[in-house]
Amino acid sequence: MLRESDLSRIAIVLVRARNPNNIGAVARAMHDFGFSDLRIVNEYAMPLEGARSAVDASDVLHAATTYASVAEAVADCTLVIGTTAVGERDLNHPLLTLNDAAPKIHAQLADIPAAKVAILFGSEKTGLSNDELSHCNLLLTVPMFRHADARHPSMNLGQAVAVCLYELVRDRPLTHASKPIEPASAAEQERLTTLLAELLEAIEYTRHHPANGTLADLRRLVLRLHLTRTDIPVWMGILRQALWKLRN
Amino acid sequence: MLRESDLSRIAIVLVRARNPNNIGAVARAMHDFGFSDLRIVNEYAMPLEGARSAVDASDVLHAATTYASVAEAVADCTLVIGTTAVGERDLNHPLLTLNDAAPKIHAQLADIPAAKVAILFGSEKTGLSNDELSHCNLLLTVPMFRHADARHPSMNLGQAVAVCLYELVRDRPLTHASKPIEPASAAEQERLTTLLAELLEAIEYTRHHPANGTLADLRRLVLRLHLTRTDIPVWMGILRQALWKLRN
Repeated sequence: MLRESDLSRIAIVLVRARNPNNIGAVARAMHDFGFSDLRIVNEYAMPLEGARSAVDASDVLHAATTYASVAEAVADCTLVIGTTAVGERDLNHPLLTLNDAAPKIHAQLADIPAAKVAILFGSEKTGLSNDELSHCNLLLTVPMFRHADARHPSMNLGQAVAVCLYELVRDRPLTHASKPIEPASAAEQERLTTLLAELLEAIEYTRHHPANGTLADLRRLVLRLHLTRTDIPVWMGILRQALWKLRN
Repeated sequence: MLRESDLSRIAIVLVRARNPNNIGAVARAMHDFGFSDLRIVNEYAMPLEGARSAVDASDVLHAATTYASVAEAVADCTLVIGTTAVGERDLNHPLLTLNDAAPKIHAQLADIPAAKVAILFGSEKTGLSNDELSHCNLLLTVPMFRHADARHPSMNLGQAVAVCLYELVRDRPLTHASKPIEPASAAEQERLTTLLAELLEAIEYTRHHPANGTLADLRRLVLRLHLTRTDIPVWMGILRQALWKLRN
């Protein structure tokens, strides 16, 4: 479980991202999950300005920092992780699936007060180069489906970042818990069963289908409904109304 | 763990999605993770055509089916799950976080051969309406960060679908496992330690820093490097070359 104070100790580093929409989507995902440290590595004019309009993510985009090299972008980090789609390249790195890498990130942040973690994402087209990967302590990959006919798969940049950040916070509990669903008590279900039996008698169901109409049959039928405490009075009201209509 | 044959038993249902790019992004994520059943509910002219150009996802988009109502779209499903950002609305449904909902989906598919699961996503702007939610057996939410100043958060549609699908397959193992990293043996590390001692003698480090130069000190220094079997000969070669240069 990532503590809230650890969210700022994880930097997302985009290396040679070209599409401002993708940078905006990355910032949006960071905002959604509570991350704030966006770092952009680009040799030439940066597409960051183009992304500043991204909905709901202006805080992340305005705080984004830019670097001319991967070395500068990760200088203060103690664990540098590269993301890869795992193609034919022979990877000279430990490679973990995302869900195996997450505990290592959590442990580094929990165990070492000064630790900072960088997660690198390469360009939309080519991913991270071998030189860029050489800055990484380990690599992670999101396990994708291998289509029989396909080139090796790669994810959309905004979706890849969203999935990685989600994995880091997926055990975050709900802030708005829903009301607990209270199951009905045996007594409440018994009252309903009795009322149902009365109705079936009134409509002569019991006479026409004697095999299904014993009280034990009806009790089992009602129990299988798994009624909630709040739904019992609704069903009781419906059955009483039907009985009233039959008798008037 | 979702079996490969179960991927086609989960339908992604987009209700009133308006932006063709978002539909394309959803199809892309489905393709990446191996899902194929995309269903689109729209009362009016469908934006599906506009999405057909989505990279790498044409198979999903071409097989997508369209419906005029939620009821028709989920008719063959035994478990219907709505997604929600959990705003101020009073939800009259069991609400689970995504990682608590995933095991229920897995169990339904594993236990019941005829089961089909639908996961509904609402429009980008308003999410699912109360009427649309009433078709659902349960609701799931992706736990997001609550910014102090914020309206209630909502995710980008393509990212929300990517995150949900990822959760369903996150324990999928790597298809291309990386070579296991073999640690060096004690004997290999001892040979390196001996060679290092020889070099430190030759450069007179041992004479200038006698406190750090015992063989036991050097052995600990080398062991803390956690060298791999393949890196040992590289370091041995470097040390030997330095010794050779010093002696010639």
